[in-house]
Formats: sequence, C-alpha cells, structure tokens
Amino acid sequence: MKYAIVFGGVSFEHEISIVSAIALKDVLKSSLEFIFIDKDREFYLIDQKDMKSKFFSSGDYKKCDKLTLKQGGFFKKALLGEKKVEFDLVINLVHGGDGEDGKLAGMFEFFDIDFIGPRVEASVLSFNKLYTKMYAKEIGVKTLDYEVLKDREYELKKLDFPVIVKPSRLGSSIGVSIVKNKEELEYALDVAYEFDNEIVVEPFIEGVKEYNLAGALGEEFVFSIVEEPQKKEFLDFEKKYMDFSRTEQVLKADIDSNLQEELQENFKKIYSKLFQGAIIRCDFFVVDGEVVLNEINPIPGSYANYLFEDFNSVVKEVSKNLPKKHKIEIDYKYINSIVKAKGK
Amino acid sequence: MKYAIVFGGVSFEHEISIVSAIALKDVLKSSLEFIFIDKDREFYLIDQKDMKSKFFSSGDYKKCDKLTLKQGGFFKKALLGEKKVEFDLVINLVHGGDGEDGKLAGMFEFFDIDFIGPRVEASVLSFNKLYTKMYAKEIGVKTLDYEVLKDREYELKKLDFPVIVKPSRLGSSIGVSIVKNKEELEYALDVAYEFDNEIVVEPFIEGVKEYNLAGALGEEFVFSIVEEPQKKEFLDFEKKYMDFSRTEQVLKADIDSNLQEELQENFKKIYSKLFQGAIIRCDFFVVDGEVVLNEINPIPGSYANYLFEDFNSVVKEVSKNLPKKHKIEIDYKYINSIVKAKGK
Repeated sequence: MKYAIVFGGVSFEHEISIVSAIALKDVLKSSLEFIFIDKDREFYLIDQKDMKSKFFSSGDYKKCDKLTLKQGGFFKKALLGEKKVEFDLVINLVHGGDGEDGKLAGMFEFFDIDFIGPRVEASVLSFNKLYTKMYAKEIGVKTLDYEVLKDREYELKKLDFPVIVKPSRLGSSIGVSIVKNKEELEYALDVAYEFDNEIVVEPFIEGVKEYNLAGALGEEFVFSIVEEPQKKEFLDFEKKYMDFSRTEQVLKADIDSNLQEELQENFKKIYSKLFQGAIIRCDFFVVDGEVVLNEINPIPGSYANYLFEDFNSVVKEVSKNLPKKHKIEIDYKYINSIVKAKGK
Repeated sequence: MKYAIVFGGVSFEHEISIVSAIALKDVLKSSLEFIFIDKDREFYLIDQKDMKSKFFSSGDYKKCDKLTLKQGGFFKKALLGEKKVEFDLVINLVHGGDGEDGKLAGMFEFFDIDFIGPRVEASVLSFNKLYTKMYAKEIGVKTLDYEVLKDREYELKKLDFPVIVKPSRLGSSIGVSIVKNKEELEYALDVAYEFDNEIVVEPFIEGVKEYNLAGALGEEFVFSIVEEPQKKEFLDFEKKYMDFSRTEQVLKADIDSNLQEELQENFKKIYSKLFQGAIIRCDFFVVDGEVVLNEINPIPGSYANYLFEDFNSVVKEVSKNLPKKHKIEIDYKYINSIVKAKGK
C-alpha cells in the first residue's frame, strides 16, 4: 500500500500540519508520497528527504514539482504531457481549514481519489463546534451547556462565570480563552471574533477530568488507549502545537473498565457511519460521573498515532474499509423522452 | 458582469440541471459562459448556441474544449500553454449531488473562484434532510415530526400511517413515497434504500397547505412572491422535472399579509448568514395555523427565477454581497522559533 500524505493548506494550523506530516513520515511503515498545499493553495510534490520544517518556512519547497488535481489523481508536467503521481490512497493531514472543513474531502470525492479522512458531512459537523452540539443532541450524546454569540454580540444570557470562549470553527485552542468575570469577557470575545463571527461559550469547569480516545471503523471498531491529557488550565496553542509532533506511546489513563466501556460506547455513537474512512479522536469530559463530549477531532495531530498500540495496522484496516461509493447512472432517459415527444 | 453557469454533475439530477441551465440562458440578461460537468466529472466549455438538451444526451458536447480547474479559475489548452476562461463569477446550477452536497462549493472556495450558491456548511445542512431538522430545531424553526431509519431498518417506532418516506440526501422527490399502511412500508423503504442508507419518515398530511418562498441576502433581504404549488398527492419526479424549466412568472398565492410576513420571518431565520451568497427556496407547510419548514432548496430549479419580479437584479445584488473571505496569514512564526531554539 502506497500512501500520499497531503498536508499544509490555508488554515491557522498550516504549520501544525507540516509538523504532523514530518511526525507521520517516521511512524508509517509504508511507501509514501508527500503533497504539500502552500499558502497560495498550489500543490507541490515533496521529496521524502526534504520533509524538514525549514524546507517549507524558507520557501525552498517552491523548487519542487507543481501538481495539478484532475480526474483520478495528481499530475505533474512531464516531457511529453503529464505524469500521474502514483499512490493507492491519500491520507488527509491538513488540520483546520481546507482539511477539516470539508473542502479537500469534497475535492477528493469529486476527482475520485480514495482517501483516509472525514467526508464532507463529517467535516462540517465536527469542524463547527455549534454543529457538533446539534449532532450530539440528535444522537443522544451529552455535551456541556452552551450559548452562541454572533456578529459582535457581547452579552451572555444564561451562563455564569467562569466560562470558556471558543470561536466556532477553529481547532488547536486558537482564539480560546477562559473568562472568570464580566470584565474579562469583552476582551476574550474580541480575540475570538478575530477568528470567527460565531462564538460558542460553555461553562468552564475547574479541574474537570478529561479523557481522549481515538479510533476508527475497520472490519470492526478499533480503539486506542484512553489518555488523560496533562494540562495547565487548558492546553494553549504552543503546547498543543508541540503535541502534534508526538510519536511516542503514552501511558494509559488510570480508569476502570466501566468508564473505558462508556467512553467507547459514546465514541461508537459519534463515529457511526458518518466518520467511516477517518481516524478520529474524541475528547471527553467526565462531569458528575457522566461522560460528556468536549470535541471531535476528525484529523487529530499526527493522527493520534501515539495512542495506538499498532498504528500501522489501524491505517491499513481503515484503508480497506473506506465508505462505498454510490454508483449513479446517467442515461438521459428524461431528455430522450422529451426530445422524442417533441419530435425533434 | 459576466457569469459562468456551471451545470450537470454526477447526480440523480444531472438531466434536471441541463434543463435548468437552458432555462436560465434565456432569463439572464448578462454575458454568459457555460461549463458542463459530464458523467465522468470532466469539465467542458459549451458554446451558448449549443445549449440544447440533445447536445448533451447525444454526447456531442465531447467535441467542446475540456477545462482544467486550477487556482483562480478554469483553463483550456491554447497554442502556447493555457488560456483562462474569463468571467466574474460562477453560478452553481448543479442540482443534487456534487452541487448541493458541498463538493463544488468547497472546490470553488479552494480555487478562489467567486460563486453564487450555498457554501459548504449551508450545503450539508440543507442537502441532508436529517441535518435540516437538526438545524431548524437549533434556530427555532418548526418542522414536522420525524423518525430516522438506517441500514435497512424497516420498523417505525412512533409515527402512525399515513407517512411519507424520503431518502435523506436526495432532492426532486426521487425515491419518495407516501405510505398508507404497514404493508406498503417495506416496498417504499426498499425504494428509498436504493438511494440512501438513511431514510427520513414524516407524517403525511393529506391536503396540507404548501407555500414556496425564494429569496436571498443582498444589501437587505430580497424575497420572491409566495407561491402555492399545484399538486396531486405530491409532485412526482417527472412533474418536478418539468418544473425545472419554468421561466414564466406565476401567480401569487392568495394569503394575507400576516402569513406572508411569518413566512418571510422564518425564511430569514433559516437563511441567516449561513446561506449568504446563495439564492434559495424554502418550502413551508402550514399545519394547524403554524408555519412549518418542509425543506430548503439551496439551488432551486432554474434558480426559482419565475418567482421573482426582477430576477436579474436579485442575481446582481447577491453577486455584490458574497460572503467575505477570511484572510489567513501564514508566516511560519512557530517553525521559525523552533528552528531557532534548536539552533539549526
């Protein structure tokens, strides 16, 4: 199996995606291609030996072959016409915008390229924190209470302090603040509004227990170990950023089998068929003994490889169980019958 | 203003889209280009004089220039390299899959092509009937009660007959059946499962009042007249199909100003900012005196031009009020600071 790792993209997590791709290069025991999306959204084919962060920040990548996306794959210019970049499937490793908001998923589907990663619907429901709440409600998974502020609204209607303020459509803690009182709220909202015009506000629960569980649907569900992430108040951007380069196995959270099962049951409900084809990480809280979904990471940093005992076989299993494509016949039945009826 | 009408696409509504594009050709008083997506998802530039349904059903379109989608636009081969197809913005007229499920929206955003049509999030929430229900609940717009059946489930849990059975992700009444008793249910579900593995079932209300209202956000909201569609039991595919070619103004529904206002208020809540850039049609029921959302058509047949008094100025207004693009700076701040810290 040969994978093409697609990374970069125009997103606040562009740099994180580069780090994530470099981490996966060492983890994946397969033949790999690397396709970089630069800040102008041009595709470049990167040689494995050049997979170093400086190669991108310096602009050196521009010497690489540019690629064009067309039916069936990525193509580079060749002496006579074009040459297809050969691989079996893409691993979508573009964190944040472009990768997690459904754009790339839609493009890969349109151009008939098999890929690991969330599909368009799964992307939209997990990238937008408000839609994640709606979805969780629908499938019977608990989330924290919340309020939505829009278009420079600054007034909370029901929540008491402390609260946590999050732009609706950003990952990696960007633009997120904990707010302890009314005075801090305006500034926190100003920061968040820099990133999105829709803000989700939730109660902030000091010292809440947090558990991360990654997994995917292969033949059956495969789960990672449960991790209890370290944290100060919460992981800030730089902390999380470093997190994206992790490749070392972590220690299991010290939880009983009941809780582990409950986390897995919630994960299954969330993953359902919606996320088929993706390896996702769900971040849960436990509040008053109840499991509560915090967020869904449809493309977690370096694919949360460090949480799995055998990450390579998870990737292989998912590859073999991608969602089926619907075959749509286009036979011009209606046009033919109308043309016939009109006698022309 | 020069528009490129993009139509066709791999969808059960491929033929409808062709008919819809031919209808718009006569309605739009602007300079136009026509870009056809064929059943292999190749792009073709169609000459205006060839915009006849037979040109597509016969395969004659294959003699036209093929286009490649790249940063900034569509390109055709020229003597020396490539030539960009010149236009100001795309009108997305691909009904059903590809056009209304977010794929094309994501591609246009990725390749920085301005367009009229729903964005990715708006597409997902309106194309999937279950997500439309979730969204309506969130924003406080009423919908009919419903049940979801999945993965070949055949048992209703709460609804009484008669019911209406709809594949979750198809428009134009495809795969939809009215079911009067338990005996008919299995067959109706078999039909629906042909198109989707997720089925939405709603109560069927004999003789319910139905009202269609189209509109868009320009400087302000612009609304069409309210139409009361004719129907037998409900519009079947062939009936709706003919509907897509309509260009003649229709008569206003005979309703009082209170109901008209209520329909418009519901429309505004639904449209919100989510649908900015699109001209949509919302189909409402009135049940026990209450306005209830039936469905959102984010790309209605021939853009519901026949419902507007001055369709050309609606298109112009929407063109001038497309959603703002977020500028994302990519400055390699983190990578540079890490490279520096590591001293390499």
